[in-house]
This record gives sequence, C-alpha cells and structure tokens, in this order.
Amino acid sequence: MENLLNVALIQHACPKTNNLSISIAGIKQAAAKGCELVVLPELHCSPYFCVTQDNKNFDLAETIPGPTCEALAKAAREYNVVIVGSVFERRTAGVYHNTAVVFERDGSIAGQYRKMHIPDDPGYNEKFYFTPGDLGFQPIKTSLATLGVLVCWDQWFPEAARLMAMAGAEILIYPTAIGWNQTDDRSIQQQQLDAWITIQRAHAIANGLPLLSCNRVGQETEDGDIFWGNSFICGAQGEILARCGDQAAVINAKIDLTASEKIRRSWPFLRDRRIDAYKGLLKRFSV
Amino acid sequence: MENLLNVALIQHACPKTNNLSISIAGIKQAAAKGCELVVLPELHCSPYFCVTQDNKNFDLAETIPGPTCEALAKAAREYNVVIVGSVFERRTAGVYHNTAVVFERDGSIAGQYRKMHIPDDPGYNEKFYFTPGDLGFQPIKTSLATLGVLVCWDQWFPEAARLMAMAGAEILIYPTAIGWNQTDDRSIQQQQLDAWITIQRAHAIANGLPLLSCNRVGQETEDGDIFWGNSFICGAQGEILARCGDQAAVINAKIDLTASEKIRRSWPFLRDRRIDAYKGLLKRFSV
Repeated sequence: MENLLNVALIQHACPKTNNLSISIAGIKQAAAKGCELVVLPELHCSPYFCVTQDNKNFDLAETIPGPTCEALAKAAREYNVVIVGSVFERRTAGVYHNTAVVFERDGSIAGQYRKMHIPDDPGYNEKFYFTPGDLGFQPIKTSLATLGVLVCWDQWFPEAARLMAMAGAEILIYPTAIGWNQTDDRSIQQQQLDAWITIQRAHAIANGLPLLSCNRVGQETEDGDIFWGNSFICGAQGEILARCGDQAAVINAKIDLTASEKIRRSWPFLRDRRIDAYKGLLKRFSV
Repeated sequence: MENLLNVALIQHACPKTNNLSISIAGIKQAAAKGCELVVLPELHCSPYFCVTQDNKNFDLAETIPGPTCEALAKAAREYNVVIVGSVFERRTAGVYHNTAVVFERDGSIAGQYRKMHIPDDPGYNEKFYFTPGDLGFQPIKTSLATLGVLVCWDQWFPEAARLMAMAGAEILIYPTAIGWNQTDDRSIQQQQLDAWITIQRAHAIANGLPLLSCNRVGQETEDGDIFWGNSFICGAQGEILARCGDQAAVINAKIDLTASEKIRRSWPFLRDRRIDAYKGLLKRFSV
C-alpha cells in the first residue's frame, strides 16, 4: 500500500522588494494541480540582499508572525495546502535569523526552523546578517507528514540531514538560494550544479527519505550570481521524480510516504551506525 | 601548481579459492600505466563466502602479516606501488575482521583498517563472520598521501567519510563487494547502482576529497548476487574521472592532491560545521 503525497516546488525569480504575489500565484497553481505540500525558495520575499553588507537591509526583516507570515497563512487557508515559506526574521534588535516557517492548511504556524549552518563567501555575506539558528535540527509536525526543514547551506552537511532523520523527519526539505559566479567557466558551473544535486540526493539515500529542494532562479544584480534553479524532488533512494530547468516553474510529483519503511528494511543503515565511534564528529578537526 | 597522483582500480572477478594471481596481474598492468597507488576489491582473495553461514569458511582467514600480505608486499616491492589490499583477518580464535591492508612501495605494511560498519542482509551474512572493527576511523600515512581507507558498507555512512577527512585523510578509498539480487527488476538494480555512486560522490563533495571505489564483478554462485562492478575514481568535487563497466578492468586516472585546498577555500564546509549541535549523532535514534 502506497501513501502518496502530491508535493510542489515553486521555483521563481525574486526581483522586487516584495515578491509575495509571485509566490502566492505559484501556490495557487500548485493547488490547482492537487498538491498538498508547497515549498518556496529561500528568502523569496525580496531580492537576495546578502550580496553586500548594508545595515539598511535589516529593514527587510520581519517578526514571526508578521506581514509575510500573515500573507502565507492566508494562502495556506485559501488553497488548503501546507506551505514551507522563508522569512528574514527579526527576533530582536541585533538578532536576525534566516528562518523557514511552516504553515498548516488552516493557516496556523506549524513550526519554524532557523538556519543552522551560515555561509559566508563573496556574494553571500550571510554571517553579517544571520545569527546562527538555536532551535537545533527539529522536524516540524504537520497534518501531512513530519517535515525535516533545513535551509540552503545546510544542504552540504550530512550531519544536518541525519539529525533531522533521527528526530523523526519523513521528508527532507531545502528552500535554497544558490547560483553561479558569472566569471566561472561553464564546466565549473556545471560541476557545481552536479555536486549540489548529488549531495542532496545522497542525503535522501543515506536516510531513506524523500527530499525536496527549491531554489531561486535568475540574476538579480549586475555583478551578482545567477541563481541556477534546477529545483528537484527525489524519492527515498535518491531517484529523481521531477526537476526544473533554469527558468521559473512550478513542478510537482507524488512522493510515497511508505517508501522509507521499505527502503530502510533493504538497506538498514540506521541499524548499523557505529555510535560508539562517532565522538570525533563533535570536534572541529581531529589533527 | 597541481600535484598529480596516478591511481588505479583493479576491478576483477574472484571465482577461485585463491585469486591473488588475478590481483597481481592487475597490479602489474596498473604499474605499466605508470600508476603509483593501486586499489583492489574487497576480500579479493576468495569467492565472497558471506553468501552463507558456514564455519568452514573461517579456514579462509589469515593473520596479518600472513600469506596474502606476503604476496601483496612482494608485488608492492616488485612494481614499486602502494597497494590497498583486503584480507579476511584471523586475529585470534573467534575474532575475525574484514580488514584493508595498505602496503608501502618497499613492501612494508603502512597500516590497516578494520571494517567498522558490518552489514547483514540475505546473501551478505557479514555479522556472522566479522567482528566490527575496533581501530576507529584512522587514515593511513603513506609516501604518496594519507589514505582514508574504508570498506564497502562504510560507504553508506557519511559519518565514516567525515571522520576520515577530519583525521587528515587526503583520499577516500573503498574496496567493495556489492551486487544485484537477480530477482530484482532492472529498474531497481539501476536505481541501486545509481544510489551507490551518488552517495560516494557525495562523500567526496562533503569533504572536498578525491575518492576511489573498487568493486568486484560478476556472479560467483548460482543463487548469489551479481557483483555490479562500476568501480570509479572521482575528484574532490565529486566529478567522475574514470569509471568501469560491469566487466573486469584496470582503470586509472590522475587525481590532483592540491584540489582539496582549492575546493575547500571555495566551499568551506569544515569551517561551518555546527559542532555545538551535533550531539544527537551519538544516539541510535532520537525519538
């Protein structure tokens, strides 16, 4: 017996100060396809402001709940879907987070996840803006499934996916903003994209869980990276079920929530973890 | 400045009680191609005896050093290569390990790794034969590089690759024996193979390290699995450099030992690990 869940990714550009109308049009489109779970890209409300360090950008931050949450809550109610949205959270003066917020179908907030791994690279000045999350790797229970919501840079850390799986997540979900440096060769760009897809599929495989990754798309500033899209949905053995190209798109697929039980019986990795020998994982480096 | 190391995988069938001549012929071939590091499949000396539980098979076990080690040491000296071999180790009466042994170019033993994660599935009765390794995840220093040698089932555990990387490994290496159940559909078989390649490439990506995976090939018993070959070499961003098909083959590629420095500067995952929030990794499950 399968237990199919129709899920959607709203891959879109975020060119304006307020892109909520784009997000909500996508949610409407996904609901029309019968989707029950909808995922938006990272920080979808505004252009990706972390390209520079500018104090004025803290004006973009909002409380949770706040105006963006209210709009997404309304959409969740109107279209009867669970929504994974992304908010630049103002917690207090001087404490801001990059936060994913999950809305139930009735518009209530099911839970939130504050991005734990914060990148900092040219064009991605996130350590300037975001205090590292302090909620840990706690999945969020919803009426559809228990969601292991992580955010972007987290996707490079097998530890994050594992901890979500071990805390009971039934789906891994990554709102994302990642792109190519325009000055890199096309071959390097393709290798990076391939690495990005590969490591996330590996989290699905390692943990026997379906995975949804929703990226932004397109170029927002003259010197900025080109967000590479390629959002995808894969099954519990990492098999690709749906994948976007580099244009805005709403894609969907039916994931089987019973697949994890089957896959984990065949490949019981969780049974065989050497927890007696993993203490080194709590170190920065061992040499 | 690149620092290229020519490495080889000897993918071969292991049909006989003693296949060392096949292994050594492959080592000779690799040396003739100018390779300096040569990797053999898991338990390459004998047929894969773990298909059944039979006490007589413990007769196949050897001490380290022992006859197989002596033969591989001789080959290392003769062909002036570092060899990663695999031995069914008899440590004492009732304590046997699945052990990778690394030989220096002068034939001395550089180090050994006892398989830490032990599988147990139909056709892979490894928990019957092998005591779980007790040497931890310690890379082995050689004149060529520091080798993060793991074995087969370890390849499904991101923890193992991470710990090797954190202990200073410069290359991840997996002698392997994995195959298809004959009764599975071709699509399931392909999905499994794809998952196997994907998760190992992801270890390369997560840790910014080149990776070598050397599998057996072919069918050894009437009911047994068909070892799927597809051994491969990938670079520090998971890019495939060479890959076998499902037939015996000696493949080689030049890996760049300076690539890790470059890749880890661009994608500094080790900098951003949330070691304050990883304690849960030491648990079996958190729910």
